Amino acid sequence: MVSNKFYAVVAGIGPGTGRSVALKFAEHYPVVLLARKPESYQDVVAQIKKAGGKALGVSTDATDESALASAFESVKKDVEFENLQLVAAIYNVRPGSRSSRKPFLELTLEDLDTSLQGNLRGLFTFAQSVVPQLLKSVESSPYPPTFILTGATASIRGSINWSVIAAGKSAGRIMLQSLAKEFGPKGIHVAHAIIDGGIDVPDEEHSANNDATPDGKISPFGIAESYWALHTQHKSAFTFEIDLRPFNEKF
Amino acid sequence: MVSNKFYAVVAGIGPGTGRSVALKFAEHYPVVLLARKPESYQDVVAQIKKAGGKALGVSTDATDESALASAFESVKKDVEFENLQLVAAIYNVRPGSRSSRKPFLELTLEDLDTSLQGNLRGLFTFAQSVVPQLLKSVESSPYPPTFILTGATASIRGSINWSVIAAGKSAGRIMLQSLAKEFGPKGIHVAHAIIDGGIDVPDEEHSANNDATPDGKISPFGIAESYWALHTQHKSAFTFEIDLRPFNEKF
Amino acid sequence: MVSNKFYAVVAGIGPGTGRSVALKFAEHYPVVLLARKPESYQDVVAQIKKAGGKALGVSTDATDESALASAFESVKKDVEFENLQLVAAIYNVRPGSRSSRKPFLELTLEDLDTSLQGNLRGLFTFAQSVVPQLLKSVESSPYPPTFILTGATASIRGSINWSVIAAGKSAGRIMLQSLAKEFGPKGIHVAHAIIDGGIDVPDEEHSANNDATPDGKISPFGIAESYWALHTQHKSAFTFEIDLRPFNEKF
Amino acid sequence: MVSNKFYAVVAGIGPGTGRSVALKFAEHYPVVLLARKPESYQDVVAQIKKAGGKALGVSTDATDESALASAFESVKKDVEFENLQLVAAIYNVRPGSRSSRKPFLELTLEDLDTSLQGNLRGLFTFAQSVVPQLLKSVESSPYPPTFILTGATASIRGSINWSVIAAGKSAGRIMLQSLAKEFGPKGIHVAHAIIDGGIDVPDEEHSANNDATPDGKISPFGIAESYWALHTQHKSAFTFEIDLRPFNEKF
Repeated sequence: MVSNKFYAVVAGIGPGTGRSVALKFAEHYPVVLLARKPESYQDVVAQIKKAGGKALGVSTDATDESALASAFESVKKDVEFENLQLVAAIYNVRPGSRSSRKPFLELTLEDLDTSLQGNLRGLFTFAQSVVPQLLKSVESSPYPPTFILTGATASIRGSINWSVIAAGKSAGRIMLQSLAKEFGPKGIHVAHAIIDGGIDVPDEEHSANNDATPDGKISPFGIAESYWALHTQHKSAFTFEIDLRPFNEKF
Repeated sequence: MVSNKFYAVVAGIGPGTGRSVALKFAEHYPVVLLARKPESYQDVVAQIKKAGGKALGVSTDATDESALASAFESVKKDVEFENLQLVAAIYNVRPGSRSSRKPFLELTLEDLDTSLQGNLRGLFTFAQSVVPQLLKSVESSPYPPTFILTGATASIRGSINWSVIAAGKSAGRIMLQSLAKEFGPKGIHVAHAIIDGGIDVPDEEHSANNDATPDGKISPFGIAESYWALHTQHKSAFTFEIDLRPFNEKF
Repeated sequence: MVSNKFYAVVAGIGPGTGRSVALKFAEHYPVVLLARKPESYQDVVAQIKKAGGKALGVSTDATDESALASAFESVKKDVEFENLQLVAAIYNVRPGSRSSRKPFLELTLEDLDTSLQGNLRGLFTFAQSVVPQLLKSVESSPYPPTFILTGATASIRGSINWSVIAAGKSAGRIMLQSLAKEFGPKGIHVAHAIIDGGIDVPDEEHSANNDATPDGKISPFGIAESYWALHTQHKSAFTFEIDLRPFNEKF
Repeated sequence: MVSNKFYAVVAGIGPGTGRSVALKFAEHYPVVLLARKPESYQDVVAQIKKAGGKALGVSTDATDESALASAFESVKKDVEFENLQLVAAIYNVRPGSRSSRKPFLELTLEDLDTSLQGNLRGLFTFAQSVVPQLLKSVESSPYPPTFILTGATASIRGSINWSVIAAGKSAGRIMLQSLAKEFGPKGIHVAHAIIDGGIDVPDEEHSANNDATPDGKISPFGIAESYWALHTQHKSAFTFEIDLRPFNEKF
């Protein structure tokens, strides 16, 4: 039974976490999927619709202020979303980071800026767009309106070769902590997830209902379940931070 | 539909968290409730049975090695529990701590020992009893066998007047972290909850289905929901630690 | 006895920490003082020279790559510094942050960028300039070459109204942790100081030798002593992080 | 120039940290050395005296309330110490812990109690003995009276096979944090050192003045220098916690 009053938005759709989170929230709400390229969301939008849900993919740079504004304009004009209120926003943007895993002296300011753009400036822009919408839903939302940030081990630890990624990730986490303290008392649930391990990218044989995730990889379906559990927490028992890791991950 | 193969145990039943956790897990499993005095569990056992569940209250000192062994002996002899396997164990014992919130120089070794007995030695004893049982259930359990410890703000921070309580709580948390690292790879989900705020003790007007929890207090039903969410996490996405606090709690 | 082989550099000179750190290190090394405006360093340069030390003030934007390169060029051309090797670098730049202590929805991307420029991009640029110099001094330096970052409470915690400052500060801290792990094994001591409290700005009546700091304020001379203690630590006993707060500060 | 008004006490003397700390503080103060067996302190007492310092070794169980009381009685009766005031107390007791590094299910309550006795109950007892003495010295002490606890990686992290050691160590750390918050405003500097690495035990060829410490081991002289730096911090700039590790230690 998909809501006809409320919707969720997921920024950052790839084959892993973003996709699974969209699928999970689509069991309950119409979902807007934001990604740079249509090919990132097309099949998951189709999959949601096929299962009886509602989904709207929008090509945008979620880290760019005016592009994001345009994206939400187009959501407001969509016949299925125009009257819906936002009750859940997930920021899951992953800047192309592999190339910036380098010794410090080989990095450039551009590497740092790339990490900051996706991990922090984009988060800032996205939060400024969605928080006012979430505030409007506090009274009517079935669960406390929720803002979730996908973090990583680098959000709490700087390791060799991870300097610019960890800088961006940790900055996002601490900025989010400020938001949790500011907007919690106003009724918004702000939460951070430390994803501590590699994500498994499921294929046809590996769905939410089976157990094919190889040891040492995190099932994105598992992440999605925990995000939903965060969203449905009672307002007297908000979690700010969870860690998520495979049973056999060292920590 | 209550399981006829598996059971859960909750050590430490009071009017708050322990009671609510027992009620929640009793929706799925027969539940053993351990408390020093029958009056602590009698009415919740009755409430579970009335709702169609199975519950067994045992008067014991869960922090005492032989008392705890006897308690599990009596579980094994109970006609409804004798063939069940343990899949969830929650340690929720609260040593009578209010009296040990004192300036450091007014405390005695006895105050320290009281905190250690309930928060650490009891946890150790309980864990040594239940972990072998949980290990036996890894293959058959519907969800990864789970061990949850109820912690508090004092588990991560020592404040004025809280020295002996914080010592016991923090020691329990770190011991649990060792267990998470040792038994996670063997399939047991070990988790710690930082309860950051006062617990509301619900009365008749205030059940799991309404919203009567006063601002600034944590609904024990909210805690119970999060414990259940921890228990049902996929083995590729275990959370070791969550914090739980009212939306308007400062942190 | 001021060294005639080695020098130190302090980026960010104001009436508090930067000035005191420069004075302390000038007891042992010639010191380069970097600040945007000459009036920030002129009197402390004079004070160092009067006391028999060597000091060179350079007007530069330490957060700007080419400005910083020019600044180090002018150091290399200075007759007193041209043959000296760098053995200590302190990054103490404080972006004009008071104006960005605002509710989140009143902030702009420009506020975020201002914090990032001073707290992170500048740190990155400065570190890329000084780390190669410090590496060259590993064998000859009397103490392990040292890089110190002045942090704050906001480096480890996001509070209401501190979102953009905390983002920049925490990012700097974690980037520094990466550097500590990468360059420690190469012989450089990388350290972070969490300054937890307001800094007292000393006047004539309040020097390093008396005790006039008002309760609740940190003496910058105290900070300078701890930075020197960090610099002189044995290479087998490096501290990555210290906190510094007044005796009566709550934490 | 050894003080004739003030003294220091070090509880727990072995070939590593305790010995080096006693030697360092003996450069400034008469030092009381507490150890179970005379052979633990005899040669260091002789070494201090030979260097012109004052030292008093007392055989006692520093974790036992009445034994510790007797030990301080004998200090008060010693002709060289009878009129001195305590200004520094270091708790450096290491319970025989190697035998309790075991898989959790092989441990006994006795293993836990051994860890708690040395790491926590002893700390509690020692703190209750020395804090009142330190309070009396606040006005007269040349530096803020100081209480330092030697901690370890296990003080902040529970690892496999370290459950009972980490429980004791982390409990000590958090208890100390309570003391720092309670007694800081009263003028006592309470500090915790996380020793992250193995300690080198120096021999004749390896003194405070050379650099023979093998890579990957911590020189106890380096620890002693940092403890002295903590003791001499200005009261406006107290450090609660430092970490100490070899330059090439992974962290």
